[in-house]
Amino acid sequence: MAEVITTGTELLMGKVVNTNATWIARKLSELGIVVRRITSVPDDLDEVSSCIREALRRGTDLLIITGGLGPSKDDLTAQALAEALGQRYVLNEEALNMVANKLKERGLGLTANRIKMARMPSKATPIPNPVGVAPGILVREERTLIIALPGVPSEMKAIFECYVLPELRRLTAESLVEGSLVIRGVPESDVASLIESLEVNKDCRIYIKTRVFKGGIEIYMSSFRQECYDDIREALMRVKEAIIKIGGIIVNDITMRRGPRR
Amino acid sequence: MAEVITTGTELLMGKVVNTNATWIARKLSELGIVVRRITSVPDDLDEVSSCIREALRRGTDLLIITGGLGPSKDDLTAQALAEALGQRYVLNEEALNMVANKLKERGLGLTANRIKMARMPSKATPIPNPVGVAPGILVREERTLIIALPGVPSEMKAIFECYVLPELRRLTAESLVEGSLVIRGVPESDVASLIESLEVNKDCRIYIKTRVFKGGIEIYMSSFRQECYDDIREALMRVKEAIIKIGGIIVNDITMRRGPRR
Repeated sequence: MAEVITTGTELLMGKVVNTNATWIARKLSELGIVVRRITSVPDDLDEVSSCIREALRRGTDLLIITGGLGPSKDDLTAQALAEALGQRYVLNEEALNMVANKLKERGLGLTANRIKMARMPSKATPIPNPVGVAPGILVREERTLIIALPGVPSEMKAIFECYVLPELRRLTAESLVEGSLVIRGVPESDVASLIESLEVNKDCRIYIKTRVFKGGIEIYMSSFRQECYDDIREALMRVKEAIIKIGGIIVNDITMRRGPRR
Repeated sequence: MAEVITTGTELLMGKVVNTNATWIARKLSELGIVVRRITSVPDDLDEVSSCIREALRRGTDLLIITGGLGPSKDDLTAQALAEALGQRYVLNEEALNMVANKLKERGLGLTANRIKMARMPSKATPIPNPVGVAPGILVREERTLIIALPGVPSEMKAIFECYVLPELRRLTAESLVEGSLVIRGVPESDVASLIESLEVNKDCRIYIKTRVFKGGIEIYMSSFRQECYDDIREALMRVKEAIIKIGGIIVNDITMRRGPRR
């Protein structure tokens, strides 16, 4: 069970679509990790730290935070994290080396603003940033593994792919199995009744969702159990037959997908 | 001060980008309403109702909820809202009329699944849906105005534009003023120091954000005070001059925008 916190006043102003949250949620789902909540908060020390505290109180196994690790005054996730965990907010020597080396590559020196990127909770470990300067942060609090990543999508994704994903893969073996079907010509409420009357293997804990969009209605099914591939395909085939029987049209035939994207 | 809750397991699985949240946040910002938190929760009765309860406990003036008002079994926002408010979950006669009329236009009859779209908290008022079947829900709880809208973007937007926006316009007179500038060739940390040394009119409570993206660094400033248009423009002009002085390049010159989008 995981939670995601994305920080950034620009998200709360509707200036930027929160693609980071979607990307992370997708990656975690592919690993079989259920994301229970995604929260966006502005660049405000109290808001960020109380949001972290609330997630810890709900007892999540994994908490991924993005944004607020840069050199700006409003980058305050590391400090908020220290406050939420009751740890000191200190200069991390390993992180300072990472920052200094990255700046050197770019021909830049250490300034107060840049040194700030090496400050983190006292018990935290820095995670190398393959494309940018600010390191990620890894810290454990009782049952929760907390990972903070920069908000710049290219940096967030690079750290996630290179360091977070391998770590999480070790923690989980399950993977997502999913299938979908797009139809039209039948009202959503009829599709809903049809789906409710489906008998599926309860052990598969199949998640079923219908989504109405311009092109029709998508019927989506997924399970975190690889062995339920055939159960999902058969369930979709039964839906397809029933839809055709009541006069519906198949827009996209059944497509199945298995395992994490590479 | 507002909060937004978007429901839908598809959001937590990273299947769908949460454009509804961004759209609503943008609309509220344009009205001068500060969005303090955006939360996404799965289609789960307990998760949705506890998320609503938490928002009410934080004392928000406005709570907008999207998703979960349709005919499917996993559409359970109305019931979760009733539980969170301690109100009965009842069939609303006015909503039933709306639903029945919409179905009639489409040549469809009332079924149990469809009647569900007319069920809501006992003290709630239905909001007409100009493009779909499921009505929106409006209900007050102490200081908080709560509005629940369908998750289908076209329906959510239509209800928002036709019924919610006029209501909110009456509640607030302020509007957003904003400006931005895109530069490159200067490290973000130098832009940060430069911005920190800017002297701006404190009364304007100017929000300043730098955002790094492929094309360069955007420097964005906004205020909820219309009379601060010139303060923002002058501040951006000072940044522009300083950037040029230290060898930076202007990618996009200063652009200013005033008032809500029509």
